[in-house]
Amino acid sequence: MEPATTKESVDHVDVLIVGAGPAGMMMALWMARCGVKARIVDKRGSKPLSRQIFNGQADGLQCRTLEIFDSFGFANRAWIESNHMLEICFWNPDETGKIQRSGRIPDTIPGISRFQQVVLHQGRIERFFLDAIESTSPIRVERGVLPTSLELDASLVEDPEAYPITIKLRHLTEEEATPKQVATSANGVVAQDGLFRSNLAADDTAELLRGAELNSKANTVETVKAKYVLGADGAHSWVRKQLGFSLEGESTDYIWGVLDIVPITDFPDIRMRCAIHSANSGSIMVIPRENKLVRLYIQMTTTEKTGEASSRADRSKINPELILQAAQKIIAPYKLTYRTLDWWTAYQIGQRVGTHFSANERIFLAGDAVHTHSPKAGQGMNVSMQDAYNLGWKIASVVKGTSHRSILKTYEAERSQIAHDLINFDHKFSRLFSGRPAKDVMDEEGVSLEEFKDAFQKGNMFASGIAVDYGKSIIVAKPSSTGTLENGTSESDLAVQTAQSLATNVKLGMRMPSAKVLNQSDARPWHFQERLPSNGTWRLVLFVGRLGLPECRQEMTKMCEPLGAPQSFLRRFTPQGGRYDSVIEVLTVHAGPRTDYTVFDFPKVLRPYDEVDGWDYNKIFVDDDSYHEGHGQLYEYLGISPDKGCAIILRPDQYVSYIGPVGDYESIDKFFSSFMVDQTTRN
Amino acid sequence: MEPATTKESVDHVDVLIVGAGPAGMMMALWMARCGVKARIVDKRGSKPLSRQIFNGQADGLQCRTLEIFDSFGFANRAWIESNHMLEICFWNPDETGKIQRSGRIPDTIPGISRFQQVVLHQGRIERFFLDAIESTSPIRVERGVLPTSLELDASLVEDPEAYPITIKLRHLTEEEATPKQVATSANGVVAQDGLFRSNLAADDTAELLRGAELNSKANTVETVKAKYVLGADGAHSWVRKQLGFSLEGESTDYIWGVLDIVPITDFPDIRMRCAIHSANSGSIMVIPRENKLVRLYIQMTTTEKTGEASSRADRSKINPELILQAAQKIIAPYKLTYRTLDWWTAYQIGQRVGTHFSANERIFLAGDAVHTHSPKAGQGMNVSMQDAYNLGWKIASVVKGTSHRSILKTYEAERSQIAHDLINFDHKFSRLFSGRPAKDVMDEEGVSLEEFKDAFQKGNMFASGIAVDYGKSIIVAKPSSTGTLENGTSESDLAVQTAQSLATNVKLGMRMPSAKVLNQSDARPWHFQERLPSNGTWRLVLFVGRLGLPECRQEMTKMCEPLGAPQSFLRRFTPQGGRYDSVIEVLTVHAGPRTDYTVFDFPKVLRPYDEVDGWDYNKIFVDDDSYHEGHGQLYEYLGISPDKGCAIILRPDQYVSYIGPVGDYESIDKFFSSFMVDQTTRN
Repeated sequence: MEPATTKESVDHVDVLIVGAGPAGMMMALWMARCGVKARIVDKRGSKPLSRQIFNGQADGLQCRTLEIFDSFGFANRAWIESNHMLEICFWNPDETGKIQRSGRIPDTIPGISRFQQVVLHQGRIERFFLDAIESTSPIRVERGVLPTSLELDASLVEDPEAYPITIKLRHLTEEEATPKQVATSANGVVAQDGLFRSNLAADDTAELLRGAELNSKANTVETVKAKYVLGADGAHSWVRKQLGFSLEGESTDYIWGVLDIVPITDFPDIRMRCAIHSANSGSIMVIPRENKLVRLYIQMTTTEKTGEASSRADRSKINPELILQAAQKIIAPYKLTYRTLDWWTAYQIGQRVGTHFSANERIFLAGDAVHTHSPKAGQGMNVSMQDAYNLGWKIASVVKGTSHRSILKTYEAERSQIAHDLINFDHKFSRLFSGRPAKDVMDEEGVSLEEFKDAFQKGNMFASGIAVDYGKSIIVAKPSSTGTLENGTSESDLAVQTAQSLATNVKLGMRMPSAKVLNQSDARPWHFQERLPSNGTWRLVLFVGRLGLPECRQEMTKMCEPLGAPQSFLRRFTPQGGRYDSVIEVLTVHAGPRTDYTVFDFPKVLRPYDEVDGWDYNKIFVDDDSYHEGHGQLYEYLGISPDKGCAIILRPDQYVSYIGPVGDYESIDKFFSSFMVDQTTRN
Repeated sequence: MEPATTKESVDHVDVLIVGAGPAGMMMALWMARCGVKARIVDKRGSKPLSRQIFNGQADGLQCRTLEIFDSFGFANRAWIESNHMLEICFWNPDETGKIQRSGRIPDTIPGISRFQQVVLHQGRIERFFLDAIESTSPIRVERGVLPTSLELDASLVEDPEAYPITIKLRHLTEEEATPKQVATSANGVVAQDGLFRSNLAADDTAELLRGAELNSKANTVETVKAKYVLGADGAHSWVRKQLGFSLEGESTDYIWGVLDIVPITDFPDIRMRCAIHSANSGSIMVIPRENKLVRLYIQMTTTEKTGEASSRADRSKINPELILQAAQKIIAPYKLTYRTLDWWTAYQIGQRVGTHFSANERIFLAGDAVHTHSPKAGQGMNVSMQDAYNLGWKIASVVKGTSHRSILKTYEAERSQIAHDLINFDHKFSRLFSGRPAKDVMDEEGVSLEEFKDAFQKGNMFASGIAVDYGKSIIVAKPSSTGTLENGTSESDLAVQTAQSLATNVKLGMRMPSAKVLNQSDARPWHFQERLPSNGTWRLVLFVGRLGLPECRQEMTKMCEPLGAPQSFLRRFTPQGGRYDSVIEVLTVHAGPRTDYTVFDFPKVLRPYDEVDGWDYNKIFVDDDSYHEGHGQLYEYLGISPDKGCAIILRPDQYVSYIGPVGDYESIDKFFSSFMVDQTTRN
């Protein structure tokens, strides 16, 4: 059927997002929170069947991802519904070849975050995103919409007012938008390839109703003019193909079967994350999930052989029965079977990274569109969401006219490094995991338990997402070891140098660590990170130290006088009529004691006044003991001397930009001036 | 307009609830969770205006109430949206008569609960209840429905199959169901007496849609036959009047004004709970709320005088301007004004308790229908909800045929005591609060700061809801000091005696205290209380001690052999086809270490097997260190020796029924046998 005549009207949007998976949703959420005009389209239809087929693909949530969710207000939903993974157990053959538990380590390194790794299916995570987007903006995911052409007018890319991208969207019919299903019978109660039945939760109803509504547009084509486009459309990215970019890397020989089952077993660690290496039958990774489900990644040693000749093995021969048999061999002498099969698949995947992450910093790629790898490490969804988390606030601030376009270059600089780290990690991890366990110390070809455990432990820090460390740039005032910035500018281009020594545990380029502090006004304990919601604002955090010390008071005054002045950067970079904390929010944390002070002991600029709301009681905090939740010892935790203090600049995504003395107003002004748009001179 | 002809059809329900305030909602939620056929009606209409007029009345949530919310799965919503009150500040006149901060105490006593007192408006709390009810049952609140007649056939009250209550319900039109509004102008941006604008949250939409639907029944009368009726219809309870019961007590002379405002003030403790006593102008209680709001309870000393002659003062003369003026006098020399007034009222209230809490244990009263008092102590909504929380599971178990009707007598025995404690507390507290502060130690008529602070501190334990201590009865196997049970039966009637000494900090008749334990299967930390959801099941908790000790193993075996046998009370009291944990759930907590054991080291009855789901991994816990949340030390916290252990029976509402040795199967069988219905002999 030919599409109906193209609509005459052309829609103008600031940001068009192609693909409504986790990366696309994250981008849309940023746009929602920053009040940017955006659309998000996905070729899959609105029926649960058509959307939820992919839900089995990825569902581990790193602790950093949960921190990000919390900054948008929905980590609690994931935390409550998910399964929490606390411990990894290693099972290896003993001298007789029988598997036995040979070690345990915590799944998340204790102390690195207030969250730990959890598992939840992607359908629920998408639900949380949708609710968060819809509760604060008019943005709605448009399903059954396929982009058909993409043009970028290179002559307009540096004009902030221009819409240099033209994209055509075809609205599909529900039939076109529904992928074909392959129903497979197995020895279980229910077995549908790729369909999460448990996904059909009550709160999806509104979604279904909207499907009918969108369908009225079916079989039409419309033209959209956009300032920015994000291609978050998966490993086979249409956007990437339009740009002529490719993924580079290699394929792997290993085939893995995946079963999501309610296991019936006498294997005692089935509710732990387990790495089971059998003597000769391959490996299993056990990932306990929510609702009694357990995911098993099972190495298909027999199938691997049949596929050895060709570069891609024949996955069509694999079925759940075959995968279960492989698992039973590995886990013997323990018994394993099931009556409930929720989902299954088999995969064989390489590690690849995109050659480019953007075209002219106007069209960007994120998620699987720029990096693919195996699902076992539980990284895919996390890194994809974090790509968009890195990019969203940057685009929003440029679109809103508060930042120069120059900050957009940092996206590729920051995220391509992570993508490379990811595939290196995955490559190493996959090979170690698929290797045969060493028989003894003399067995050099086999993988020793120590080697494996060590790799796992090191991998855990990477896998947490906490280790991300962005390089030096105009928004990370960090000394580079090479003298050259990662985005190509030279050292001397930097506006300011920062003083890492003032906060030894706050690392430039890394996310701000968190411990509990108390609100000075009401003594309520908060994790400091909870005061850093993702709303697009930069934050200047003044650790003013002990107010009882004249030096500390003096430094505070030195900062606050220019800060409160009319020509302050707070005023210069905040649009006319914008709230005092809408571009840069100033937070203060003093070293106590709480009961010696009230907010009125602090300069006015630290507790701004509003004619309707009175004084702001949510800007001043204190590092002191709480009644019910202990003493966070934030100064100590961050390595900040309470006799000296420091000023820290945090990006809207909680990464650390700058550390300096409390009183050094000038450097901070310089930092912001290097990329922010002066609103007083803007017409 | 005359109602249309009475419908011919008669609806039969197990439970009819009159009144959809917090007490009625709590009852409906129990019915939802226990799968009981119930209806809940309220005369107020479905428009927000008509429902939310009363929202200003009560909104403190005790820590015990939050524990109860958590047992239904929504404490987190209240915890996130509410304002947390951490500290009480006392302000009193200094020697010159100027008010000054004279002391601070924690608002919730540290250590008594994992929650602390919070404040949130009633509209949100009702929302949480509605969502919880609707997500698990077909029960929907029917608004604009007025009961017009109530009959109880006394000859049928002891017949478990009978519907002895006949009630007629009139479906009102929306106009009839909407109370008249009094709009009052003040110096604020908006001022509407009794209307919470902030209540019109997005998730009320479904509610509004349903309003239209219900309206189709407008102006009809229907007849309902019910097994049980709950009158939760407020201080002017229609149900209570039909039964001819009255409230007894006294009126008070004090008039208090209430303002819910966004304060503009230089008073430094405006975000703390404050008790401010001025020298001669009366008192203010400050209750900081969510969304920048602060509630002020203000003593109207001038108005009080005008109303002195009559028994009820003239409240019609009071307006927000007058209340603000009174507040300004008390809080001087600090300034206080506002631009945003959310709600206001003035009240003068007595303390009264109902003469009876039930008619033939078929028609019950709960909440304001049986006790009224001042709102300042923040108790009303809490005690009302807890009335229904006490009653709901009892009625549900009788309706479902698992318990004898005899347990219903415990409702009045348990809750009338609480109601009397409440009004005594409120009486004392109100008078102390309204008293003039003592000028010096010689001023005997004035209230001294010490006296006041002391009363506050003692009151805090009562106000937390944790101090509730139910008397001896067939469901609380507690020695009574008098030898007579509170419900009138004598000591010798008791089936079993219990051994308080085996768990010195677990008090019979009080709610089970909680600390963190780990799931043996996956090492996940849980607050023990989180494993006690309100689903209607009794719980037998086996603290089996250290399995390394032969004595402990022996006691465990002594219990588990008869417990797993076909004639076990677990089997006898569980209906045919019911899940193994649907009437009595067995939980085990051993003393560790965790890594020495797996669930397969425990008898099968402690980790039941299901043909589809396999072994149950959620019944066995261990008191051991966690990776990220410390060591709960539950045995120590509860005063249980890990070398000895004990068995504890918990009611479905988390109150402690029985404590005894682990191996004493007989006493536990006897305990349950005294009120549970043997399903093997039931026809």
